[in-house]
Amino acid sequence: MARVHPVGVFAPVATTFGSDGELDLAHYASNLGWYAESALDGVAIMGSNGEYVSLSTDEKLKLIETGVKAIDGRKKVIAGTGTESTRGSIELTRKAAELGADFALVVTPYYYKPRYDKAAYVKHYHSVADASPIPVMIYVMAAYTGVDLPVDTVVEIAQHPNIVGIKDSGGNAPKVGELVARTPEDFSVFAGSANFLYAALCLGGKGGILALGNVAPSECAQIVRLFEQGDHASALALQQRMLAPNAAVTTRFGIAGLKAAMDMIGLYGGDPRPPLLPATDAERAQVKSIMEQAGVLDPARVG
Amino acid sequence: MARVHPVGVFAPVATTFGSDGELDLAHYASNLGWYAESALDGVAIMGSNGEYVSLSTDEKLKLIETGVKAIDGRKKVIAGTGTESTRGSIELTRKAAELGADFALVVTPYYYKPRYDKAAYVKHYHSVADASPIPVMIYVMAAYTGVDLPVDTVVEIAQHPNIVGIKDSGGNAPKVGELVARTPEDFSVFAGSANFLYAALCLGGKGGILALGNVAPSECAQIVRLFEQGDHASALALQQRMLAPNAAVTTRFGIAGLKAAMDMIGLYGGDPRPPLLPATDAERAQVKSIMEQAGVLDPARVG
Amino acid sequence: MARVHPVGVFAPVATTFGSDGELDLAHYASNLGWYAESALDGVAIMGSNGEYVSLSTDEKLKLIETGVKAIDGRKKVIAGTGTESTRGSIELTRKAAELGADFALVVTPYYYKPRYDKAAYVKHYHSVADASPIPVMIYVMAAYTGVDLPVDTVVEIAQHPNIVGIKDSGGNAPKVGELVARTPEDFSVFAGSANFLYAALCLGGKGGILALGNVAPSECAQIVRLFEQGDHASALALQQRMLAPNAAVTTRFGIAGLKAAMDMIGLYGGDPRPPLLPATDAERAQVKSIMEQAGVLDPARVG
Amino acid sequence: MARVHPVGVFAPVATTFGSDGELDLAHYASNLGWYAESALDGVAIMGSNGEYVSLSTDEKLKLIETGVKAIDGRKKVIAGTGTESTRGSIELTRKAAELGADFALVVTPYYYKPRYDKAAYVKHYHSVADASPIPVMIYVMAAYTGVDLPVDTVVEIAQHPNIVGIKDSGGNAPKVGELVARTPEDFSVFAGSANFLYAALCLGGKGGILALGNVAPSECAQIVRLFEQGDHASALALQQRMLAPNAAVTTRFGIAGLKAAMDMIGLYGGDPRPPLLPATDAERAQVKSIMEQAGVLDPARVG
Repeated sequence: MARVHPVGVFAPVATTFGSDGELDLAHYASNLGWYAESALDGVAIMGSNGEYVSLSTDEKLKLIETGVKAIDGRKKVIAGTGTESTRGSIELTRKAAELGADFALVVTPYYYKPRYDKAAYVKHYHSVADASPIPVMIYVMAAYTGVDLPVDTVVEIAQHPNIVGIKDSGGNAPKVGELVARTPEDFSVFAGSANFLYAALCLGGKGGILALGNVAPSECAQIVRLFEQGDHASALALQQRMLAPNAAVTTRFGIAGLKAAMDMIGLYGGDPRPPLLPATDAERAQVKSIMEQAGVLDPARVG
Repeated sequence: MARVHPVGVFAPVATTFGSDGELDLAHYASNLGWYAESALDGVAIMGSNGEYVSLSTDEKLKLIETGVKAIDGRKKVIAGTGTESTRGSIELTRKAAELGADFALVVTPYYYKPRYDKAAYVKHYHSVADASPIPVMIYVMAAYTGVDLPVDTVVEIAQHPNIVGIKDSGGNAPKVGELVARTPEDFSVFAGSANFLYAALCLGGKGGILALGNVAPSECAQIVRLFEQGDHASALALQQRMLAPNAAVTTRFGIAGLKAAMDMIGLYGGDPRPPLLPATDAERAQVKSIMEQAGVLDPARVG
Repeated sequence: MARVHPVGVFAPVATTFGSDGELDLAHYASNLGWYAESALDGVAIMGSNGEYVSLSTDEKLKLIETGVKAIDGRKKVIAGTGTESTRGSIELTRKAAELGADFALVVTPYYYKPRYDKAAYVKHYHSVADASPIPVMIYVMAAYTGVDLPVDTVVEIAQHPNIVGIKDSGGNAPKVGELVARTPEDFSVFAGSANFLYAALCLGGKGGILALGNVAPSECAQIVRLFEQGDHASALALQQRMLAPNAAVTTRFGIAGLKAAMDMIGLYGGDPRPPLLPATDAERAQVKSIMEQAGVLDPARVG
Repeated sequence: MARVHPVGVFAPVATTFGSDGELDLAHYASNLGWYAESALDGVAIMGSNGEYVSLSTDEKLKLIETGVKAIDGRKKVIAGTGTESTRGSIELTRKAAELGADFALVVTPYYYKPRYDKAAYVKHYHSVADASPIPVMIYVMAAYTGVDLPVDTVVEIAQHPNIVGIKDSGGNAPKVGELVARTPEDFSVFAGSANFLYAALCLGGKGGILALGNVAPSECAQIVRLFEQGDHASALALQQRMLAPNAAVTTRFGIAGLKAAMDMIGLYGGDPRPPLLPATDAERAQVKSIMEQAGVLDPARVG
């Protein structure tokens, strides 16, 4: 019998701050309420787009609590619970489970990366998975952490019965293919960016946690649907149409760009926490233009 | 009307040396004669697997001459003609054309990489393409050169009417997808390694120049055929079966591993030029075991 | 009149944990008591060797409080107060000042490094310096953070009257020289590793925060003294003798090696927090042998 | 008895091209004639600043022949003779010796860097040193090659009686110090850039091969003299004054900047070979201004 494992399109939701820099939980709840009625399969609270590294532990717990309530069982909830220490990761994972998260997303420890070998990573993940009441996903985000777990390491980590997937943000096709080939059928290999969602599906991936899912949930979900229907040509065409808006809310304009795009579709984005700088007016105009050209920003749809 | 552009599976053929370290043109010709009757669509002479950086200009010319004669029109011939200077690249490209090569594969200049911006690369490729009697392909091999041309740069280079394709060895799915989306229909985006051939085809790629094609030409060509027939499940399964033998002749054991595998299927591989070290007996045994397990090494087939 | 700025040799003290993984403040206090009577000019609490990334905010405050009391005014105290957010860095810096720290050491934010440009870093450091009651040092630790602030950025940050120094762990001689040349006389350029302490002094540096200072405070201080006396030959000879023990407690065996060496000289080292693995017996034996050969481990001296 | 080994300041001379892109040997000879009467200890023909990667073998031989004649025994001549293959490096080294070069400078093979381990590099250098009639220097230029030989590898290579030095362009102080400490007294550790010449001397280095030596030979030689006289303060002050002009002819404006500066002091620089782009007028103006401010460009001195 297959284990519970994540499937489909998840949005790594942005954390909302007020003009005073404090958490804005009211807007957070209303954003997540909107996602709960969207085409998404779920949300990921406190991924990189959720600025988890800039949050205190108290703030993290409030976000999980608020998010789970706002979703109210309508979608799956993944909570980012990784910290630099095994001890801290276990503690936060347990609390996320108590607060109702469905999965824990545990980023690779990275600060002391020159000292972390395969044994260190396997022990870390297996310790967290042993202690976690909920299934655990591995989170590889090399652009930010500098750590790109080798396939052999992931394969060994994935032997644990409570490790059910990986989000990899790199987009390396051979790696995605090899991860799928060498992990169990009920282990989910997830795309970490919408720009290779279709490729990941072709290679046996089960879905993705996609920044673009925050502002184009229908389009992202539609790529999965078209793929499942075997309509490769339409899936590829839609995937290609999403390249520019995906870049706008990720590599080109970052979290500030994502939040600007959220503002544009009627959600509340706001500004990121410094030292991340807010989007300039010129950047906002570019984001808007890119989204309009790609057909993502359709006033008729939002409102 | 579409321009002439490369399509299908090409093997980047190994350069054969005798025990004295000199070119062994007889074995080279016999190897290429075998490829000319294989399932391949063509060969690439003097790619990275051809140890082009260790060859004198005279040796390069002899290899093109010998190779073109051995292929004898039965397959397409790509010749690696890139050097560190624009001037040298033009000279070698012209000679390759005279000797009968169908396409020129021009590696990115890389030594002074901190000084090469978009303008420098565009000017280099356009100068070579202007001077070349045959269509030119861009060759990106970041693992060896440290140069990973940005998509914007490739797109601008690709505007030249005599630039007809790119071989990219990186395997980054978003990049492959974006290259296809932003270049003309008759511009061939080629996989540079067999481990993402299927993914590249899904994303609109036209084929590949694949080290594995040297020792498993039928399997590589079969992946293309299955894809073209719309049999994604079989294509993916075959792709996955090829991951281990592909690694054996590329990242794991390098050119020495490739040459060892050639010896095993009845071709002549021999040793690479130092400082590349020959495969040890233990490495040869591993290559053999991997190829057997993957069904590539079938004594009945060779002979 | 010169500003207050750090001068001389500081040890980035290790954080001590009990066998249950909890802070061991008693041993921490006794270690710092020993340092307070050593040849050191001061200590740095919660640098990288203090495993600051694995500590909760509460634990950080306890360490500063305990450390300041244990030092009891006999040496200067630098407190590591950098976090990923400007807001968090300000908060922790203020508390460190309240608790009696002399300087704040603020690591470069690094997680979102692709998005941090010069403006973002300048604004971050100036905001912290504006809010800080105590002088601030910049902390660059590229091996762990992936961020190596360009000289131009440091020079602009250094214009703030409350920014008084930089610890750079990279050892790049041109960079050290240029930092000294382009910052005020009362801005301290500090070596971040004992393996270039003498070179940094030659280039105008004012001292260092040196892991080796934890276990060889006299030797590190002696390098400074010899340099100040103009005895370059002896300073260089001692510097060279320190290369192997320095590597043992940094790049070769990491924090686990440092803690093992502390155990050897009569301090309490203990184990690091996972996922950092403790030193193996073989590694401890190597550390011991290296320290003995370098004359650092002299039973007569400790006791 | 000490072996013959290079000592002092060498200029890695630029290769001069005419407006047709051909070698301009007349200007080359006249430039070298000027260097032969300068404060330099020698010249290095066909280093990176000599654009060796863009030269044919015939051109390389002509440059050595012309250069040796122009120097005419007045200074030492180092010839860059490294190629990607052991075989090619031996051949060129032998010819350079026949043509009268005093030392061979052999760059690390780098193209297949993922495959070159310690054994491969040791075998390569020992093979070249065995075959070379003249003493051999190791050339490490990581910014261009991506290869930064570990100290352990250099130490093992340096055991060969015909290997007498290393030029390292990285500027890493701990590495320079460790290289000096672990190699014989008559093995020359050379700075590869003038921005750490003084630091290298402090650490026991014997001199440098310095792009800046092409346009400020007196200043570079003066740093060595001041150091030898024990006048550290003046040596450091002069070193700091040279930082900006050194950057102008290396990292900021590259070979084009160096050649522009040569034009300014009455030598012939000309343009580099494409794809290197010539200096723009704005860049030339900046180079001029930087050199004037540093006191390098003194019309009274040249002429």
